[in-house]
Amino acid sequence: MSQGPIHREAKDYRWQGVEVLPYKEDDRALFKSVTRQVLFSDPSQQSELRYFEVAPGGFSTLERHEHTHNVLILRGSGHCLVGSEVRRLATNDLISVPPLTWHQFRATAGEPLGFLCMVNMTRDRPQLPTAEDVETLQKDAEIAAFLRDGSGV
Amino acid sequence: MSQGPIHREAKDYRWQGVEVLPYKEDDRALFKSVTRQVLFSDPSQQSELRYFEVAPGGFSTLERHEHTHNVLILRGSGHCLVGSEVRRLATNDLISVPPLTWHQFRATAGEPLGFLCMVNMTRDRPQLPTAEDVETLQKDAEIAAFLRDGSGV
Repeated sequence: MSQGPIHREAKDYRWQGVEVLPYKEDDRALFKSVTRQVLFSDPSQQSELRYFEVAPGGFSTLERHEHTHNVLILRGSGHCLVGSEVRRLATNDLISVPPLTWHQFRATAGEPLGFLCMVNMTRDRPQLPTAEDVETLQKDAEIAAFLRDGSGV
Repeated sequence: MSQGPIHREAKDYRWQGVEVLPYKEDDRALFKSVTRQVLFSDPSQQSELRYFEVAPGGFSTLERHEHTHNVLILRGSGHCLVGSEVRRLATNDLISVPPLTWHQFRATAGEPLGFLCMVNMTRDRPQLPTAEDVETLQKDAEIAAFLRDGSGV
């Protein structure tokens, strides 16, 4: 089996030998100011651990999928939407995203929001919301405020 | 599918609804002052995420097993032994424990050493070292100092 390094040092939420993958901004504004680092993708394990960091004011993609997300907030604070719930997040909080549940993370607190996300190695592709899905979500005033700019939540 | 809470708050490295399991000290001094919390054990995922915390001066079991450990230091600093390597650990550092490799974590810095550990749900039981295994490890002066009391490393 190929063997990676046993120890990788961290500095400022960047890790030795781990590439920082910036998400490109796109016209649809599906996400904003998010980077991704794959911390563990070990062929002998059945799940991966990734680190996502959302810059202040940024947000992750609003999406859903069959596979679950297990999240631990590693840095900073912010808010998330999971299903019909908007929650305030602090460092070390845990979030469980159930199957086929709309979710988004937002760095609403003027600081980066960094989180670990554990997922199965083999997983389905994310689904994006249709205009109708967004409209349905926005019927809830709190969710509408969250999706607009994360304020008022 | 049974559905747990989507959000569990953290306070001082303890989590809502997560039991803190103290390891009993035993006569063989296999480990000392370690607690365990299972953060994610989601039947739809193939790996678990646990949090171990070693009190100052304490240490985890010296053991090996076929399954791999993927570790992120969440709190404090200390040292670990992985195979023939003794490493100084700082917060957010990553450790990968390969199959059948002796390993131990020690809170050598006068502060708690807390770490996340990702493992496959289905895994083999740890093996403990024989007296001969320990003798072999101790032939290395740095490892001997690490195993003695974590000092001089």
